[in-house]
Amino acid sequence: MKFLNAGESHGKCLTAIIEGFPSNVEIDVQKINKELSRRQVGYGRGKRMEIEKDKIEVTSGIRFGKTLGSPIAFTIKNKDWENWKIPMSSENIYHDESINITQPRPGHADLSGIIKYRQNDIRNILERASARETASRTAVGAFCKQFLGNFKIEIHSRVVNIGGIKDVDIAEKGTNFWDKIEESDLRVYDKDKEEEIKKIIDEAKKDGDTLGGVVEISISNLPVGLGSHTFYDRKLDGLLAQQFMAMQAVKGVEIGDGFKSADTKGSKVHDEIYYDNKYYRRTNHAGGIEGGMTNGEEIIIKAAIKPIPTLMKPLNTVDIETKEKKEASKERSDVCAVPAAGVVLENIAAWVVADEFIRKFSGDSIEEINENFSNYLSYVEKL
Amino acid sequence: MKFLNAGESHGKCLTAIIEGFPSNVEIDVQKINKELSRRQVGYGRGKRMEIEKDKIEVTSGIRFGKTLGSPIAFTIKNKDWENWKIPMSSENIYHDESINITQPRPGHADLSGIIKYRQNDIRNILERASARETASRTAVGAFCKQFLGNFKIEIHSRVVNIGGIKDVDIAEKGTNFWDKIEESDLRVYDKDKEEEIKKIIDEAKKDGDTLGGVVEISISNLPVGLGSHTFYDRKLDGLLAQQFMAMQAVKGVEIGDGFKSADTKGSKVHDEIYYDNKYYRRTNHAGGIEGGMTNGEEIIIKAAIKPIPTLMKPLNTVDIETKEKKEASKERSDVCAVPAAGVVLENIAAWVVADEFIRKFSGDSIEEINENFSNYLSYVEKL
Amino acid sequence: MKFLNAGESHGKCLTAIIEGFPSNVEIDVQKINKELSRRQVGYGRGKRMEIEKDKIEVTSGIRFGKTLGSPIAFTIKNKDWENWKIPMSSENIYHDESINITQPRPGHADLSGIIKYRQNDIRNILERASARETASRTAVGAFCKQFLGNFKIEIHSRVVNIGGIKDVDIAEKGTNFWDKIEESDLRVYDKDKEEEIKKIIDEAKKDGDTLGGVVEISISNLPVGLGSHTFYDRKLDGLLAQQFMAMQAVKGVEIGDGFKSADTKGSKVHDEIYYDNKYYRRTNHAGGIEGGMTNGEEIIIKAAIKPIPTLMKPLNTVDIETKEKKEASKERSDVCAVPAAGVVLENIAAWVVADEFIRKFSGDSIEEINENFSNYLSYVEKL
Amino acid sequence: MKFLNAGESHGKCLTAIIEGFPSNVEIDVQKINKELSRRQVGYGRGKRMEIEKDKIEVTSGIRFGKTLGSPIAFTIKNKDWENWKIPMSSENIYHDESINITQPRPGHADLSGIIKYRQNDIRNILERASARETASRTAVGAFCKQFLGNFKIEIHSRVVNIGGIKDVDIAEKGTNFWDKIEESDLRVYDKDKEEEIKKIIDEAKKDGDTLGGVVEISISNLPVGLGSHTFYDRKLDGLLAQQFMAMQAVKGVEIGDGFKSADTKGSKVHDEIYYDNKYYRRTNHAGGIEGGMTNGEEIIIKAAIKPIPTLMKPLNTVDIETKEKKEASKERSDVCAVPAAGVVLENIAAWVVADEFIRKFSGDSIEEINENFSNYLSYVEKL
Repeated sequence: MKFLNAGESHGKCLTAIIEGFPSNVEIDVQKINKELSRRQVGYGRGKRMEIEKDKIEVTSGIRFGKTLGSPIAFTIKNKDWENWKIPMSSENIYHDESINITQPRPGHADLSGIIKYRQNDIRNILERASARETASRTAVGAFCKQFLGNFKIEIHSRVVNIGGIKDVDIAEKGTNFWDKIEESDLRVYDKDKEEEIKKIIDEAKKDGDTLGGVVEISISNLPVGLGSHTFYDRKLDGLLAQQFMAMQAVKGVEIGDGFKSADTKGSKVHDEIYYDNKYYRRTNHAGGIEGGMTNGEEIIIKAAIKPIPTLMKPLNTVDIETKEKKEASKERSDVCAVPAAGVVLENIAAWVVADEFIRKFSGDSIEEINENFSNYLSYVEKL
Repeated sequence: MKFLNAGESHGKCLTAIIEGFPSNVEIDVQKINKELSRRQVGYGRGKRMEIEKDKIEVTSGIRFGKTLGSPIAFTIKNKDWENWKIPMSSENIYHDESINITQPRPGHADLSGIIKYRQNDIRNILERASARETASRTAVGAFCKQFLGNFKIEIHSRVVNIGGIKDVDIAEKGTNFWDKIEESDLRVYDKDKEEEIKKIIDEAKKDGDTLGGVVEISISNLPVGLGSHTFYDRKLDGLLAQQFMAMQAVKGVEIGDGFKSADTKGSKVHDEIYYDNKYYRRTNHAGGIEGGMTNGEEIIIKAAIKPIPTLMKPLNTVDIETKEKKEASKERSDVCAVPAAGVVLENIAAWVVADEFIRKFSGDSIEEINENFSNYLSYVEKL
Repeated sequence: MKFLNAGESHGKCLTAIIEGFPSNVEIDVQKINKELSRRQVGYGRGKRMEIEKDKIEVTSGIRFGKTLGSPIAFTIKNKDWENWKIPMSSENIYHDESINITQPRPGHADLSGIIKYRQNDIRNILERASARETASRTAVGAFCKQFLGNFKIEIHSRVVNIGGIKDVDIAEKGTNFWDKIEESDLRVYDKDKEEEIKKIIDEAKKDGDTLGGVVEISISNLPVGLGSHTFYDRKLDGLLAQQFMAMQAVKGVEIGDGFKSADTKGSKVHDEIYYDNKYYRRTNHAGGIEGGMTNGEEIIIKAAIKPIPTLMKPLNTVDIETKEKKEASKERSDVCAVPAAGVVLENIAAWVVADEFIRKFSGDSIEEINENFSNYLSYVEKL
Repeated sequence: MKFLNAGESHGKCLTAIIEGFPSNVEIDVQKINKELSRRQVGYGRGKRMEIEKDKIEVTSGIRFGKTLGSPIAFTIKNKDWENWKIPMSSENIYHDESINITQPRPGHADLSGIIKYRQNDIRNILERASARETASRTAVGAFCKQFLGNFKIEIHSRVVNIGGIKDVDIAEKGTNFWDKIEESDLRVYDKDKEEEIKKIIDEAKKDGDTLGGVVEISISNLPVGLGSHTFYDRKLDGLLAQQFMAMQAVKGVEIGDGFKSADTKGSKVHDEIYYDNKYYRRTNHAGGIEGGMTNGEEIIIKAAIKPIPTLMKPLNTVDIETKEKKEASKERSDVCAVPAAGVVLENIAAWVVADEFIRKFSGDSIEEINENFSNYLSYVEKL
């Protein structure tokens, strides 16, 4: 599969095209919109989130609720377009240069972007670099989530750390773990921790500051053998790491024990192999991937999310025209977008896994993929 | 640029082809071999490293010491091939099944690999999954390092943690920092820490155990604007993360402050912008990349290296034929390969950066790239 | 650059996304719409062409008439959508199976498509396989044409054969050659031939039959050295051939003398090299490409267009449900689409050449590309 | 799958790497070498063909005669390397500039290549642009031919025209057609035509001239549904056209009736659909591909091969140093390489088809692909 997306943050709409999606997959647009709304919640979000109730409109690739095998296109409208259609016009109309943004924000694409693309209005960079783009990537992944649902593959996310306050370890997850996560507006499990986090968010807000954190994505019910050890660009951990790190604000990615494994001895860090009708493990330090391939255990990936760089208490910067010292412009006012980042990464993970699933089980229709997948499972069971 | 490599660990040779490398680049094969020998050193390496004094043989793409613009091919011989040419023969000769390896090692590609590729001899997987392959990736990167040297771009690596014992922070680096790293056979800066690490390596060896760690790669003198914010697959941090995570034994990647930024407030984590004839920063929490693009500061990336999974004190596993509980086979006996991992990742980083450099400054010959690069620098200076 | 497009023939709209297009390129949307209307004319077209006055709507990547460097998205509306929104709905509404198309048309994707994608309504295939899709590819190419116009590169097309009646050879082109082509509604140069062709089109129409032909695309003012001899996938002739052959109805592609060169001796078929302040040729049998690279002469490519396979006098086929012998369904009623095919291929050629131009001269903005291009021209002049 | 190859015509060896080839495919190296020797025969070849008895040496990816799923690497030695190791040395040794080639040959990559890559010795271009490279592509394809043999897919080639003298039409092929082609050293069917062709080759040789021609490739026993109508880069005709046109000396490609269909009416050019337990056609004007997909009929592709541009009676050219008028240098002395071109294209076609076959039927091992393929055939039979 391939996809492209387009769209400025305050442009008319976001657009995405997915090519190579199999035919006959039932698509429930409500479920996709639900992912978009999950992406928009979270304690510590600013006002813009309220304006937008994102919804996709499918314009090709689906007929009577089922995919056709042809490219899927959809858009997500900017509900506030009426207010932006002049300053964001694609047409060659009169452009009032006084509305130009000339003070690059530290931590953003602003300064590098205007140099690279030879712009004198930072808006020409920030509109595309904005995390608004992740709405479109979330929807792309939400198609894949539905596809993977046909094979019982489940993907979840949760917040494991905001501003240094940490939730429980995944190994301790109890019953209805994910339901509880969904109920929490910070997407954490431990109610006490939730309260602590809310407190530091409130404080940060008062100080005009922002907070980052760590999210964890879990992918379960995967077959053994997605990805490959044969060349670097086929290793599933590498593919996941690329897409995770390429998400706005992510500064670190780890799989399984990740950086903790640097501090541990080999005898404690590898997952011994057992057999009882099938191969299994008693531990999952590897996070479900060995040698670049799924080993049948749950994939566990964490991503470090840096604090939002647009602060109400602005950082120092320089005006690109006058070269005078200035305060960075304030484009938005969220304090913490970590829970949302987890939802986005869930869906990004769905893309990576679905793409690899289709490569392994191939087939142009869901029926054919299902047959190929079943064959493989029968073979694996007989081992 | 594109590259492919091939080769089993105990096969006749490793082979690599690089396509799209510019013409007229002077290549000093000694420098490439030096990278290979840097990869082979390190306190805590086993005997195999002594057999192999890796050297490349260039078989195409270079004439009279300069690249032609045509694909570069090279091989790295297996010095021990005489002992392996029967068990690793490509020919359809009699195959004594009793030499089959049937006990998959936890932490390796072994078990997933034989299931995916339907093998009954684990050797058919481990030979390719072995870190031996990184010799070839190191050499590929070493070509790129020489290319980048024409533009004063420098790439270094060091060990910042082995088994929990940590070296100094990069922000504290003194004079001759990298020279001192090169002199240390653990590739650490602080002599006391080095002694501590040697002690735990000796202990681990005695216990039949292994150790992991963290390496840090530094890339300096980069122009602003490599990578792009426009689409995920052009973000330089994503590209680096993919290739790093796809390196054998890597379980985590972070750029700049990485996971630490999750615990910090926004006001402390972003690098304020200043101007004094040119834009500059006083801090580098971002690790040189904002919005998926270089911002002109040093790129700083860390990778978590898990302990070697082949232990002298072997882990539990299961025989794939009898399904009996067994001890995992011992293919090698290094205790700690962390310093070597840093050298490999240095060269992998060189590939990623050179590829992006060529995309930005284009040109088919070093002369043309140099002209395009100079133009860009002049433009940047005038900003 | 990369692009994707999506859209069913009678869907709500066609959508395309172009990624990697340089910044600061002035885009005149009227010129793009003009290419779309050139694609819609031609003696022998049916009624559908009258309904559609295709226009693009740009929804991202352009602001105030200039590209931003971010992905460009646009749509082309289906003017007749009101009549199609029920039968082509993406929603899971009641689907009256009696409207299913069950008789595959010879010469179309119909039969292979429903087998491959497991469909029982041929509409699910023909909607995407339709030449309607070329409107979108034409517009994509029209962006590239404008980009190339900055470097004086010109692309034209003409009809050289319809139903066996041939126009003059390109070598004989007189003054205002291309203007005269544009004035002809069959896109031929010789007025007498035009009359003859109209006559056979009228006859074919009367007989319920269709006609094919040959178009020729000319690309002039190209620099030496686009494409490369180093690997097959970088050869410009191969890239052009792929995109031409992948256009609906194309069954043959030739460059320069093409198939004629099979009948000629070597001494007559190669273009001798001369020098008079610069290298030049007196002939252009090679059609501007030697060794997979431009040689500075005009690129000349021809494509064979098969007759439209949907005939008013329908062909034999089989009903996919009953397996009874039937007459193929009639989805449209053009007699000859050869002139339009030329316009589409002009714009497809613009994509291929622009993509290669950007690879060679790189740069993220038109200014930077222009500098790199000028350097190269200066270098070439000094040879 | 992916592949890269490397190697100068007179370098030490050609090298190729194939990535993504399935595991457990039995490989008979003799069959690959046979393809290489088929490539070397043909009436009208010069002396160099006698020196070289090309053979591959497999250095990775195969063990005990079966593929491992890991990258396959092989080399083809230059038997004459002893005579070339100084002038083609990769080392930075003294380079006698008087051996430089400074007279570009019309019809070759020579002139464009030295300009693009900034060379002053044409050897630095011609060594890679040479058709010697096709030995490596032939061997790559020969692996694929063996793979496809597991599914009864057969690929043949023949010469249908040399210098204007034409062999019979494929529609007239009698029994043992392909055996007779193999017996002919011009790879033509009609013995009288063969004699005529030999005569014009002898004449051309006497005149110091060269001859081109047309070859036809046939691919049979393909399942319905390889390729796709959904996007241009998945259309099988486009993929074949790219690789064919990118072969040295090819100037035209046509599928099925190709250019002839331009002169024919729609009612005569499309293949009506019939059913008798399965869908079938009585004609094959489409050459096996409709809508970019296989339709189950034989794929028929023709390629126009231009006469060899290196003539004993040399063409005019210009010395790149002195700018004086000169005669082009004579690097080799074949009169006609058309039969060999057919053999190369057969194997190139095998690559394209195998790649598409693996995409459709997926699987990492031949066993898994076989299961997936069988399922699909069962499904198709039930239609």
